Amino acid sequence: MNARKCKNETLGPCDVPKAVVSRLSLYLRELQHLVAAGAVTISSSQLGKLLGITDAQVRKDLTCFGQFGHPGVGYRCAELITEIRRILGTDRRWSVTMVGVGNLGRALLRYKGFASQGFRIVAAFDVAPDVVGTSIEGIPVHGLDRLAEVIAQHGIQLGMITVPAGAAQAVADLLVAAGIAGIVNFAPVTLSLPQHVSLVGVDLTTELEQIAFSVANRCTSR
Amino acid sequence: MNARKCKNETLGPCDVPKAVVSRLSLYLRELQHLVAAGAVTISSSQLGKLLGITDAQVRKDLTCFGQFGHPGVGYRCAELITEIRRILGTDRRWSVTMVGVGNLGRALLRYKGFASQGFRIVAAFDVAPDVVGTSIEGIPVHGLDRLAEVIAQHGIQLGMITVPAGAAQAVADLLVAAGIAGIVNFAPVTLSLPQHVSLVGVDLTTELEQIAFSVANRCTSR
Repeated sequence: MNARKCKNETLGPCDVPKAVVSRLSLYLRELQHLVAAGAVTISSSQLGKLLGITDAQVRKDLTCFGQFGHPGVGYRCAELITEIRRILGTDRRWSVTMVGVGNLGRALLRYKGFASQGFRIVAAFDVAPDVVGTSIEGIPVHGLDRLAEVIAQHGIQLGMITVPAGAAQAVADLLVAAGIAGIVNFAPVTLSLPQHVSLVGVDLTTELEQIAFSVANRCTSR
Repeated sequence: MNARKCKNETLGPCDVPKAVVSRLSLYLRELQHLVAAGAVTISSSQLGKLLGITDAQVRKDLTCFGQFGHPGVGYRCAELITEIRRILGTDRRWSVTMVGVGNLGRALLRYKGFASQGFRIVAAFDVAPDVVGTSIEGIPVHGLDRLAEVIAQHGIQLGMITVPAGAAQAVADLLVAAGIAGIVNFAPVTLSLPQHVSLVGVDLTTELEQIAFSVANRCTSR
């Protein structure tokens, strides 16, 4: 991707650099905090300051998707929240499943942050006899053999994988076969998926490694 | 950062693009899987294929840090693992603390993946009377009032923040005052830290938002 894109042009959404889309999530999060604190409008420099980036970067990122600022006013927070949710696709409800109800899976099932942004975990799966048939925070845990059936029944679109590394590819293949459109993979392994399935990998150890690198090399402000 | 850097030059580590350092972690993870499976050498194209990137990208990334390939052999897996761990700074032991022993904190304390890469969680902190004084997986949970003392006592260098968003900045300030050099923040809020403290933010909801964006726009292979 070319980071210089979007300056004076509106690209198709899939051509927008990943880093820009990633910052949209940060803008949204900050705007929601601001509205909760009573703010009505905000300037690009105020928003940038809250996120440790320049006002030019904020304006340039948003320009990739349209013109949202108002001369002499800045951005109207509620309006920009609506626009960003529309762009991200989180203005609708997403049905999510989780495969793997170990420590991490269990913690994520209890996490309140997903629902408030439109992501509803409607079913979980595992193979352990002591968890299959139970429910966690009201979310039923099914056996892996019922995966295709339950996904179809609830029209589940997104999947989170929280199984051990060795089982992750097989689980991903099952999710893909069941028609899942996007996967967040927490297992520390690179998955191979068909191009039409979206994938984000979250490896908690690699995050610590990135910090170790910065500290070991005494980098400032990476 | 300029993604075209590193082609024919060796940069200082802090000048290497973040995305390149991030891929080092993926190379390391894949090489460790390969060695566990009995591999001795690997070519850049094989390694790239496992990670869904080009062989040119693999070679270019590694060139940022030196020359590690052997003509006619490719990379020696064990040797490249040693080199990448040295570059990342994970050839030494890191002492880590975690502040916030809720669902996510508890799950991370039980996660086995950190220790195998050199990260040892030696102490945790919370404010809830029912968890302070307990231990999880052998890791003692202290009251927040003992943070500076325990960090100094164990020479803890890195911190993970798993408290609610509203408490995260105050906790980060305490960690910085106690001399922590790097922080992984799991709270859904942007932290403001002095430049000499390294920071990585992991927001689980924003990962889902990135997937929603790709699926909603039917992007392929983001």
